[in-house]
Amino acid sequence: MTISRSDCVTMDAGDPLGSLKARFTVPKHVIYLDGNSLGALPRHVPERVQHTIKSEWGQDLIRSWNSAGWIDLPSRVGGRIARLIGAAGDEVIAADSTSVNLFKVAAAALALRPGRRVIVSEAGNFPTDLYMLQGLAALGGAVELRVVAPEDIEAALSDEVAALVLTHVHYKSGRVHDMARLTAKAHEAGALAIWDLSHSAGAIDIDLNRDGADLAIGCGYKYLNGGPGAPAFLFVAKRHQQGFHQPLSGWMGHAAPFDFVDDYAPAEGIARGLCGTPNILSLVALDAALDVFDHAAMGALRAKSMALGDLFIELVEARCPGVFGLLSPRAAVDRGSQVSLTHGEGYAIMQALIARHVIGDFRAPDVLRFGFAPLYVGFADVWDAVDHLAAVMASGAWRDAAFAARAAVT
Amino acid sequence: MTISRSDCVTMDAGDPLGSLKARFTVPKHVIYLDGNSLGALPRHVPERVQHTIKSEWGQDLIRSWNSAGWIDLPSRVGGRIARLIGAAGDEVIAADSTSVNLFKVAAAALALRPGRRVIVSEAGNFPTDLYMLQGLAALGGAVELRVVAPEDIEAALSDEVAALVLTHVHYKSGRVHDMARLTAKAHEAGALAIWDLSHSAGAIDIDLNRDGADLAIGCGYKYLNGGPGAPAFLFVAKRHQQGFHQPLSGWMGHAAPFDFVDDYAPAEGIARGLCGTPNILSLVALDAALDVFDHAAMGALRAKSMALGDLFIELVEARCPGVFGLLSPRAAVDRGSQVSLTHGEGYAIMQALIARHVIGDFRAPDVLRFGFAPLYVGFADVWDAVDHLAAVMASGAWRDAAFAARAAVT
Repeated sequence: MTISRSDCVTMDAGDPLGSLKARFTVPKHVIYLDGNSLGALPRHVPERVQHTIKSEWGQDLIRSWNSAGWIDLPSRVGGRIARLIGAAGDEVIAADSTSVNLFKVAAAALALRPGRRVIVSEAGNFPTDLYMLQGLAALGGAVELRVVAPEDIEAALSDEVAALVLTHVHYKSGRVHDMARLTAKAHEAGALAIWDLSHSAGAIDIDLNRDGADLAIGCGYKYLNGGPGAPAFLFVAKRHQQGFHQPLSGWMGHAAPFDFVDDYAPAEGIARGLCGTPNILSLVALDAALDVFDHAAMGALRAKSMALGDLFIELVEARCPGVFGLLSPRAAVDRGSQVSLTHGEGYAIMQALIARHVIGDFRAPDVLRFGFAPLYVGFADVWDAVDHLAAVMASGAWRDAAFAARAAVT
Repeated sequence: MTISRSDCVTMDAGDPLGSLKARFTVPKHVIYLDGNSLGALPRHVPERVQHTIKSEWGQDLIRSWNSAGWIDLPSRVGGRIARLIGAAGDEVIAADSTSVNLFKVAAAALALRPGRRVIVSEAGNFPTDLYMLQGLAALGGAVELRVVAPEDIEAALSDEVAALVLTHVHYKSGRVHDMARLTAKAHEAGALAIWDLSHSAGAIDIDLNRDGADLAIGCGYKYLNGGPGAPAFLFVAKRHQQGFHQPLSGWMGHAAPFDFVDDYAPAEGIARGLCGTPNILSLVALDAALDVFDHAAMGALRAKSMALGDLFIELVEARCPGVFGLLSPRAAVDRGSQVSLTHGEGYAIMQALIARHVIGDFRAPDVLRFGFAPLYVGFADVWDAVDHLAAVMASGAWRDAAFAARAAVT
């Protein structure tokens, strides 16, 4: 028997994380299933940013670099993210974008594995990761990028390989890579494992150090809710920090940035992962957003996220039998915090859903993505979303040429 | 006869730019002479950022990438900066940090000058510029960085040189390089000229295209008032855009970022200068801050800035004769919007001034920097600042060990 809406309401009432939804400002009429693309706004963020702008910048001006602790924000925020991904506080720093940080860690990995010039990644990885590696390879230094099919990853780990670069949770399918196993395989080949946590940090209980990860990067604006284009982060395992030399060697990563000497000398520890002046307004938003995680253990969030995904799949198959393909793994443990369905008219269907204020997104050629951020999505939300989906399919509203004709909105 | 305070008040009253000060929130009791390090807060910025956070992010969520025009912010903001630096609207884009952007343009310059692997810069340049070039050189590709004394720049322009990288206004001395002449010299040698405008954009009437500049970068948080760590910008002259290939080739610089294909293909035009996802909150603050420039022509701002600097030098020499060295050029045309004095006890003196709410800054070993942002610094402010300086020197307050003992605040 299919789960009823009232069952879902009961589940929400018994959910120890259920009260966290009130810490976000998702409009009442919206079911927001796109937190895997842009996390929702934590309610207290505007005031924190406002304080930084009006008081720290407007009144205290340049002095706030010290008096308001701006200069320490990258490491402070990094330390808070570290707790969510199984890293030590001094192994993570917040800075730049995911793309820029991937460039840093990939180049540093080559320096950590002298004599090896091959980087392996997988076809269909989040594109910016591949693009950045292509940019690094094009710079010279005889770097070779080998992009292989997912099933060929392990075979590609030869003794020429300096680093394996993978995204932990696939942006399109939501498939989770086995971090421990693939990291071990990379190590067996003498390579380093670099993990992109963009679609897992804040949604999955990652344990970088347990799994032996060498380097990692991730995004601040998806499940961490740091705001559009929020600063990203990078992780360097303690054992690699002494040998970590990244080429975007800006002054903030210098051992003594305010000595203003001509020659670069890397700071001790994770700070050498910094480049230019940190973006304070955005870091403050991200810092504030992380407060929400003080009220939720990652294990509990992951358990809820899996339950939400399972519920969604069950309801879709019950209410729309045979209509959609399931791109995501069926087993929750193999799936990130999203469920991806396929349908030849996926774009039009998603537009019809969005018109009903059920916000997921579409990825070409036929993928409907539904993200279940466990901090602010509840079980009744999932039920309502599927109810709308069933109504859209039953009504044929998605066939409306007005939707299909719209330019792709991604 | 020395200019009196009432003369200065009269000058302020007659200053057509005088009313702009009210558009900033500098506290009444503060004389802020550090806009060359962190620009003051334009009064309307908090509300704009608040709107973006609460309404665009909080209510419209992911849809704001299109509905609020987030996706176009880098080019829109770039186009506004272009007008301040003598560039066409489609030659400038706002992105990343100054450091990251220097890496992009320096690497791209090498690609534009195949067969040439030398980059020339000057000793004592703003350190992050040198550090980034060192990072690029360390990546391989046989790149060689030659850092020469300022007086040896022209002699260093051999036929091996791909690019000359200079900062237009020196951060410490305020000296202005002759952009037209040095660019022409670089071109004569077959090299490109890359200009760092961090200490001149928004303070000096730059004309990149008149002067033949090839590539440029600059800072958003100094005279452009974009807020602490605001996004930076980069300029690529139209004639170089087709051949502009930068290695930080993230998805936002892709010809079709939302096609999610595996291979990088650069966007047409200046957009290929982008890398990762743009930082929206910070870009909105910078965008709003630029509104102030709609009310002031750069020529008028430059004229006022020169007059403020001249007044400061005149008053310091009258009120504190023989006490300070003048590090900045005496001729206003050779000077950016700052005046730098030298004194063996410069650090303690600056601390004493700051205690009196006259905020400049100190650069080792002996430099007191005073910035005169013409948008919000007036003639009476200059008079009052020198009055405080004279009082500090007369009282010997700066000798107070309490000041000297403090850790360097930079």
